[in-house]
Amino acid sequence: MERHVDQDLDQVRQGLLRMGGIVEGMIGGAMQSLLDRDSDHAAAIIRQDAEVDALEKEIDEDCHRILALHQPTARDLRFLVAAMKITNDLERIGDSAVNVSQSVLVLNQEPPLKPYIDLPRLSNTTRSMVRDALDSFVGRDSAKALEVCRRDDQVDGLYKQLFRELLTFMIEDPKTVTRALHLLLIARNFERIADHATNIAEDVIYYVEGRDIRHSADKVGSKQA
Amino acid sequence: MERHVDQDLDQVRQGLLRMGGIVEGMIGGAMQSLLDRDSDHAAAIIRQDAEVDALEKEIDEDCHRILALHQPTARDLRFLVAAMKITNDLERIGDSAVNVSQSVLVLNQEPPLKPYIDLPRLSNTTRSMVRDALDSFVGRDSAKALEVCRRDDQVDGLYKQLFRELLTFMIEDPKTVTRALHLLLIARNFERIADHATNIAEDVIYYVEGRDIRHSADKVGSKQA
Repeated sequence: MERHVDQDLDQVRQGLLRMGGIVEGMIGGAMQSLLDRDSDHAAAIIRQDAEVDALEKEIDEDCHRILALHQPTARDLRFLVAAMKITNDLERIGDSAVNVSQSVLVLNQEPPLKPYIDLPRLSNTTRSMVRDALDSFVGRDSAKALEVCRRDDQVDGLYKQLFRELLTFMIEDPKTVTRALHLLLIARNFERIADHATNIAEDVIYYVEGRDIRHSADKVGSKQA
Repeated sequence: MERHVDQDLDQVRQGLLRMGGIVEGMIGGAMQSLLDRDSDHAAAIIRQDAEVDALEKEIDEDCHRILALHQPTARDLRFLVAAMKITNDLERIGDSAVNVSQSVLVLNQEPPLKPYIDLPRLSNTTRSMVRDALDSFVGRDSAKALEVCRRDDQVDGLYKQLFRELLTFMIEDPKTVTRALHLLLIARNFERIADHATNIAEDVIYYVEGRDIRHSADKVGSKQA
C-alpha cells in the first residue's frame, strides 16, 4: 500500500522537475538569444523568472506542510531538506539566466565582438550539469551527482580562459570595453550556474548517502579568475 | 522546565552567531586590506574561509540531528529550516569575501586607480545588513528583518553608480582596465553579499511570521547593471 506521504513527496519531486525544466530552458534560451541577436527572446526569458519564483514558493510550502503533517524521519526527512535547498539553487540559476539575458539586450545593440565559441560550450556544459544534478536527485544516483561535481572544474577552466581573453580585448581596444565586459558578466553567470548545479549535486549525495562532501579536499578552491 | 530541544536549538543559534561574526569580519577585513594595501591581511581572510565551511557542515549536522531526534513542529521546525538556509547564505557570503580578497591581491600590485569612497560605503552597508539580518533571527524581530530587505535597493543603487563610473575609466584609458575590472568585481561581490543578507532576512520573516515575502512586488527586479 502506498503511504500518503509518498504521494506528497512525489508532488514535490514533480514540482522540482518542472522548475528544473524551466530554468534549463532559460539557460539555453539566454545563450540562443545572443547567438540569434534576438532581443525579444531575451526579454521573454526575463519574464519567465516570475514562474520560477512562484514555483520556489509553492514547493517550499509543500515541503513545510509535509514536514509539519507527517513528521517524516530518516530518508524522507533528508529528501525534504534537500528539496528545499534545491529550490533555492534553481531559483538562483533562474536569476543568473535573467542576468545573462539582460547583458544580451545590451550586446544586441552593437555589432558582435567576435564569433562565440567558448560561451556556447560554457552554456551547454552548465545546462547539462543542472539536468544531471536533478536527474541524480530523482534517480537517487549519487555516482551521477559526483560526476556533476567533477565537471565544475571544467567550467572554471573555461571561465578563466574567457576572462583572460576578454581582458586582452579590453586592454587592446577601448571600443570593445562595453561588449567585452558584458560577455565577461555572461561567462561569470554561467560559472555561477555551474556552482549551483554542484551545490544541488552535493545535496543529492547527502540525501542518498547521508554523507556531506561539501568542502572536502577536491572541492576546495575559489572561482574568481 | 527547559526542554532538551531548547538546549539543542540554542546551540544552533550560537553556531550561527559565531559563523556570522566570522563572515562579518571577513567583509570588513577584505575592504580594509584594500584600503591599507595589505596583501598579508587579504591572504589571511582567504584562509578564514575553511573555518566558515567547517561551521556550515557542523550546524547543518546539528539541525539534521535535532530534526531526526525531536521531530519538532511549528515554530521549532521553522527555526531549523531557516537555520539550514541561513548557514548556506553565510557560507556564500564568506565565498564572496574571499573573492574580494583575491581581487585585492591583484590590485595591490599596481598603484591605486582612485581614492576609494563608494566602495567602503558599499562594504559597510552590506556588513551591517548581514549583522542586522542575524540579529533579527536571534531576536525574532521581523520588523528589523524587513528593514534589511529595504536596504538592498540602496546597495543596488551604489553598485550601479560604481559600475558606470568604472566602465568610463576603462573606456577612457586602457591602462586602467585591469584595475577597474577588479574594482568592479569587488563591487559585484558586495552587491551579492547584500542579496544573501536579504535572503536571510526573508527567511527570518518566514520563521517569525510564517509568511513568505520572497518575490513580492517590492522585491522584484534584477541586480545586474
